[in-house]
Amino acid sequence: MRYGFGVDIGGTTVKLGFFDKTGTLLDKWEISTVTENHGEAILPDVADSIKTYLAKNKISFDAVIGIGLGVPGPMGSDGTVYGCHNLGWGTFSVRQAMEQLAGVPVRVGNDANLAALGESWKGSGCDNMVMVTLGTGVGGGIILNGRPVSGAHGAAGEIGHLVLERDETEVCNCGKRGCAEQYCSATGIVRLAKGYLENHDTPSVLRALQSMTCKDVFDAAKAQDSAAQEILEQVYSYLGQLLADVCCVIDPEMIVIGGGVSKAGQVLLDGASRYFQKYAFAACKSTRFALASLGNDAGIYGAWKLALDSLL
Amino acid sequence: MRYGFGVDIGGTTVKLGFFDKTGTLLDKWEISTVTENHGEAILPDVADSIKTYLAKNKISFDAVIGIGLGVPGPMGSDGTVYGCHNLGWGTFSVRQAMEQLAGVPVRVGNDANLAALGESWKGSGCDNMVMVTLGTGVGGGIILNGRPVSGAHGAAGEIGHLVLERDETEVCNCGKRGCAEQYCSATGIVRLAKGYLENHDTPSVLRALQSMTCKDVFDAAKAQDSAAQEILEQVYSYLGQLLADVCCVIDPEMIVIGGGVSKAGQVLLDGASRYFQKYAFAACKSTRFALASLGNDAGIYGAWKLALDSLL
Repeated sequence: MRYGFGVDIGGTTVKLGFFDKTGTLLDKWEISTVTENHGEAILPDVADSIKTYLAKNKISFDAVIGIGLGVPGPMGSDGTVYGCHNLGWGTFSVRQAMEQLAGVPVRVGNDANLAALGESWKGSGCDNMVMVTLGTGVGGGIILNGRPVSGAHGAAGEIGHLVLERDETEVCNCGKRGCAEQYCSATGIVRLAKGYLENHDTPSVLRALQSMTCKDVFDAAKAQDSAAQEILEQVYSYLGQLLADVCCVIDPEMIVIGGGVSKAGQVLLDGASRYFQKYAFAACKSTRFALASLGNDAGIYGAWKLALDSLL
Repeated sequence: MRYGFGVDIGGTTVKLGFFDKTGTLLDKWEISTVTENHGEAILPDVADSIKTYLAKNKISFDAVIGIGLGVPGPMGSDGTVYGCHNLGWGTFSVRQAMEQLAGVPVRVGNDANLAALGESWKGSGCDNMVMVTLGTGVGGGIILNGRPVSGAHGAAGEIGHLVLERDETEVCNCGKRGCAEQYCSATGIVRLAKGYLENHDTPSVLRALQSMTCKDVFDAAKAQDSAAQEILEQVYSYLGQLLADVCCVIDPEMIVIGGGVSKAGQVLLDGASRYFQKYAFAACKSTRFALASLGNDAGIYGAWKLALDSLL
């Protein structure tokens, strides 16, 4: 037994990786996520894709250690998903269903936790870290002693929903008010930008845009647009506070920042670090910051690591 | 080998417990904490007290499994304390020093983490929990799979220093502004009460007091003093937010509330739970709440559990 698969199920595509047991990614590809009829085709499609790959490459099932699977919903440690809105799924054992379809052992985890595990394993190399993913929303994953922390309700690492503004009037996607996601996600940054432009007279290139994106704000700030710079100061302040708060709870060695917003690069790390120094508990001020390095492959690496850790 | 000691070093007294290996507390007593000369007498005093106890009760050293020790400062997993202001200690290996003095194996942990471990073991019986201690300050301890989480800088569970008010003008003991400790500790509750009375005209029995205590506020609220009730609503709101934020990070099965403020009892649990429902992420709303049950003995139970887990 030498090989296995890491699979990352997303709302629009499923990413699949073929790995050896040292963690070398030998091949990767994507298939579409078919969410019709409560996502009933998703797991059969994954199983078919894996079987086809093995047949085409003349690899015996006996050579396969198993499959690791990342799912974008709250997961129990036994492989049960507790509902997954994006995929149309209710509550069932993803692990059992996938094992029946694929005929090899399967391990399942939450996608954000597995992306963190992937970064811990093949990115930062740090066994005690928090990964924060700044995308459309704000997700997170906690790695403690090299293992992902799931939580009692599959909600460990849901750091996008810490409350940063008790008096926020607008509502977060989760139904609460004042969540980190409302200030630090790509959507949140655009929201802050619009609010800033409404409440200030500062001239800004952002005012001319038909439909502003998060990248527009970073680009304008880079081009010395002072309104965009002020907006990003707000973002960095919220992000620094969020990360400082997380450190008061779990005190990791390292914080890794990923997701679409992290494409802004060093300027984002520098800004967040500056406010982290303001908000962090003294003992945590030396916590290291880094950008995620595996990009979209973090999830398949982490899924395979989860399977390896329990099957090898 | 059948017995051992759990020791909880505080700023004014050291609590010592004599246990059997099932965790039954067979005897307990206290000695004073002598902090003069950088606290150089503390560990020798503990060793003397233990040796005297064994001699008086004719118990052989061979019957002693070891000593667990709780220290009120940031601890490395190897038993190194990274400075402890209360005791006058700098950085050194408490474990090595104590082993040389006592002649038996020693394990050392942070006192708040060990109080949480004690409550997990002999109080709540829950292996995945957060304990929050509302005393002069706000401390915390995290138990994951039955083990305390220390963090990379000994700061895991320092939940008193999450920032709840970004715009706070007064300074916390830690040097930051807006920490949970400024609103939810006994000191913080009195501070909120004074602020409320200054900014409102509401008549209140609290106005007549020479020097207000946290208990006065709870007593007045119980006697239907509307100002005191408003003040406690503020406290519950902050505490509910703090606990909801902690759950977004680590998602425990249970939250246990201890410390002097918790003597207020069920009314505190009910108040905090109410605001927890407002601020908590949906998946975490069913997290159970309980009052700590071991009182001042939590620390010696946890210290002994730490020693047992690694020595037996």
